[in-house]
Amino acid sequence: MVDRTTNRRVARKPATPSPTLQDVAQAAGVSTATVSRCLNSPELVVEQTRERVLAVVQELGYAPNFGARALAAKRTNTIGAIIPTMENAIFARGLQAFQEELARHGLTLLVASSSYSPKLEEEQIRTLLARGADALLLIGFERSARAYELLQQRGVPYVIAWAYSAGSDHHAIGFDNRAAMRALARQVFGLGHRDVAIIAAPMDSNDRARERVLGIWDAAAEVGLDRDALTLVQTPYSIENGARVMAEILAGPRQPTAVMCGNDVLAVGAMGAARAAGLSVPGDLSITGFDDIEIAGIVTPGLTTVHVPHRQMGIEAARVLATLLSGGAPPVPLLLETQIISRASLGPVSGT
Amino acid sequence: MVDRTTNRRVARKPATPSPTLQDVAQAAGVSTATVSRCLNSPELVVEQTRERVLAVVQELGYAPNFGARALAAKRTNTIGAIIPTMENAIFARGLQAFQEELARHGLTLLVASSSYSPKLEEEQIRTLLARGADALLLIGFERSARAYELLQQRGVPYVIAWAYSAGSDHHAIGFDNRAAMRALARQVFGLGHRDVAIIAAPMDSNDRARERVLGIWDAAAEVGLDRDALTLVQTPYSIENGARVMAEILAGPRQPTAVMCGNDVLAVGAMGAARAAGLSVPGDLSITGFDDIEIAGIVTPGLTTVHVPHRQMGIEAARVLATLLSGGAPPVPLLLETQIISRASLGPVSGT
Repeated sequence: MVDRTTNRRVARKPATPSPTLQDVAQAAGVSTATVSRCLNSPELVVEQTRERVLAVVQELGYAPNFGARALAAKRTNTIGAIIPTMENAIFARGLQAFQEELARHGLTLLVASSSYSPKLEEEQIRTLLARGADALLLIGFERSARAYELLQQRGVPYVIAWAYSAGSDHHAIGFDNRAAMRALARQVFGLGHRDVAIIAAPMDSNDRARERVLGIWDAAAEVGLDRDALTLVQTPYSIENGARVMAEILAGPRQPTAVMCGNDVLAVGAMGAARAAGLSVPGDLSITGFDDIEIAGIVTPGLTTVHVPHRQMGIEAARVLATLLSGGAPPVPLLLETQIISRASLGPVSGT
Repeated sequence: MVDRTTNRRVARKPATPSPTLQDVAQAAGVSTATVSRCLNSPELVVEQTRERVLAVVQELGYAPNFGARALAAKRTNTIGAIIPTMENAIFARGLQAFQEELARHGLTLLVASSSYSPKLEEEQIRTLLARGADALLLIGFERSARAYELLQQRGVPYVIAWAYSAGSDHHAIGFDNRAAMRALARQVFGLGHRDVAIIAAPMDSNDRARERVLGIWDAAAEVGLDRDALTLVQTPYSIENGARVMAEILAGPRQPTAVMCGNDVLAVGAMGAARAAGLSVPGDLSITGFDDIEIAGIVTPGLTTVHVPHRQMGIEAARVLATLLSGGAPPVPLLLETQIISRASLGPVSGT
C-alpha cells in the first residue's frame, strides 16, 4: 500500500496551485453553483450529480478552505500536527516544545492523533487543510501516496519529524532510528548476550519501528547471528503490551538473556513482568528501551535506552515551518544526534 | 480576574445567535463589503477604518467561520479540545478515549494546549471557533468571563471535564476533586501523620488544584489541625518540580512525616528526591499522589493515589457533545466516582 519510492516521486512534483471551484465544476461538467450546492446543501442536489461532484472533489483533492480567507494575508497562523498517539508521553515533550517555539512566531498549534492508522492520518490531513492550517507537522515518512499528493496539490508546507532519510526530498527533521538502535544493540551483543528477544511496535506502516529492528539485525549480523535467531514480537506501544509479551516470552521455550524493546513504554512494561516472574534485572535478564522519556529514569533499575532530543526536534521543526511560511528554504533534511543513556537495566550476560 | 459567579451568570444567558457580517458593519458604521475587505485584504483598507472594524469584530466576538459552510448541514464534524498541557500523561488517556468515542460519532478531534494560561486558552477558543469547530471540550470551570461570553455569543456547545460543581449550569463531566482528596487525606491523618506537607500546582486559575488542597485542609480541620500547620508549596506539575520542592522541604526546618502531592507527577518527583536524600518511603516518609496515571503503579514503592476514571470521563464527554450536537439535552452536570488506590507509598507515622 505504501511505497516510499512513489512517495518520493510524488514529493518531487512541483506544488501545483490548489484546485479551484471552477476546476471541480469543469471536471464534473456542472456549474460552480452546483458544486457549492453539493458542498453546502447536498440535500438540494440529485444523488447522481452529488456523487459525481464529490468524486471529483476527492480526485482533485479540492478542500474548500474558506477559513484561510478569514485572516489577513490569507493566513490563519494555525499549524496542524498529526501524531500517531496522544497516550503515553512518547510525543508529548517534543510537541510541547514545538508549540512553544511556534508561539514565538505567532503561530497556534492544533493537534490530531491518528492512532497509527495511515487511513485516519489521511482524513486528518484533509480536515486540517479544510480548517485552514497554514502548514503541517507529520511523524515519519511512511504514508499513502494519496496523502502526499493531497499535500502537493494544495502546496501546503509540511515538515516530517521523528525520522531521517538521507535520500529524502521532504523537509524532515529527525534522527537515524536504525543507526541509533544499532549502536545500542552493539553494546548488548558486546556484553555477551546472544539469546536476545525483540519487542517492537508493528513495523507495517511505521518506518521508525522498522528501522529500529533493522538496527538490531545489523548488529546481530556483525557478530555472526542470523536475524531469525532473535525472537521478534510485534505489539502496539503500551506498558500493558510490553508486560504481556514479556510474560509470553518467559513462558516460551527459549529464555532470552536480554530483551531489546522498541521504546521505553514497552521496556517499562517488560521490566515489570520480569520482576513479577521473580527475575532480577539485569542479573537474570537485561532490558533496554528507546526514547529516554521520563519513566526511563524513574523505574528501578533505571532503564538503559537511547536518548532522543525530543525538545530540540520540536523546536527545530517549528523553525523549519516558520522559515517555509516566510518563503525561506531550510536545509533538507536535518539530522539530529541521539545518544545511549547507560543506566542499570543492561548488564553482562550472567555466567550461569 | 476570574469570578465564577460571573461565569455562572454568563452561562445562564441564553445563547445569542452568532453576530453576522451585517452586525459588524452596522456597529462599525461601514458597509459589509468594507468589513470583509478588512478581514480578507486589509491592505486595501485605510488603517483607521481597518482598526475600527477589527475592534468591533473583537467586541462582538465575530469569528468569521466560512469553514463551517464547507460541509453538509453547516457542520464541520470537527470538535476542539483545549487541555492545559500535552506534557506528562495527565490528560493523555482521557483525551485518547474522548477521541475514540468521537470517531464512533463521525467526529474528528483537534487539540490545543493552553500551558495553564487563561489568556492563551481564550485565544485558542477563538482560533478553534474561527477554524469551524462544532463544539469544544474544556478543562475545569475557571476561565475569564470573556471566554464564556465568546462561547455564549457563538452558541457553540461545550462540555467541561475534570471538574464537578453541583451548582454549575455548564454541561460538565468530572469528579469532586475536593471530596476525593479529602478522603485520601483522612487516611493520611488516620495513620497518625500530623507533620504533613502539601506540594500543589499553582492554585490561581486552576480550580482542580485549589479544590484538592481544600480537601486536605478539610481533613486537617477534622483532626483539629489548623491549615497553617501544614507546609504548602505551589509549583507547576512536573517530575523535576516535585523533586526540587521535596529537596527544599527536606532542607527546611520542619521535617514532614507525610507529603501529599497535587498529582502523581509531582509525587513521583518527590519520591525520587526522598530516596536521593537517603529516606525510605514509607518508613521515614509517606508520599501520596492524585490521578493514578501509569507511572503511579511503576515506581517503587507503588504510589498510593486517587484513581480518576480518565477513560470513562473522556468517553462520557464525547457522548455529551454528540448529544448536544444532535439537539439533545444531556444531564448537567455529570459526577463520576473516584477511588483511593492503596499501594506501598503511604504507611503509618514512624514511631520514632
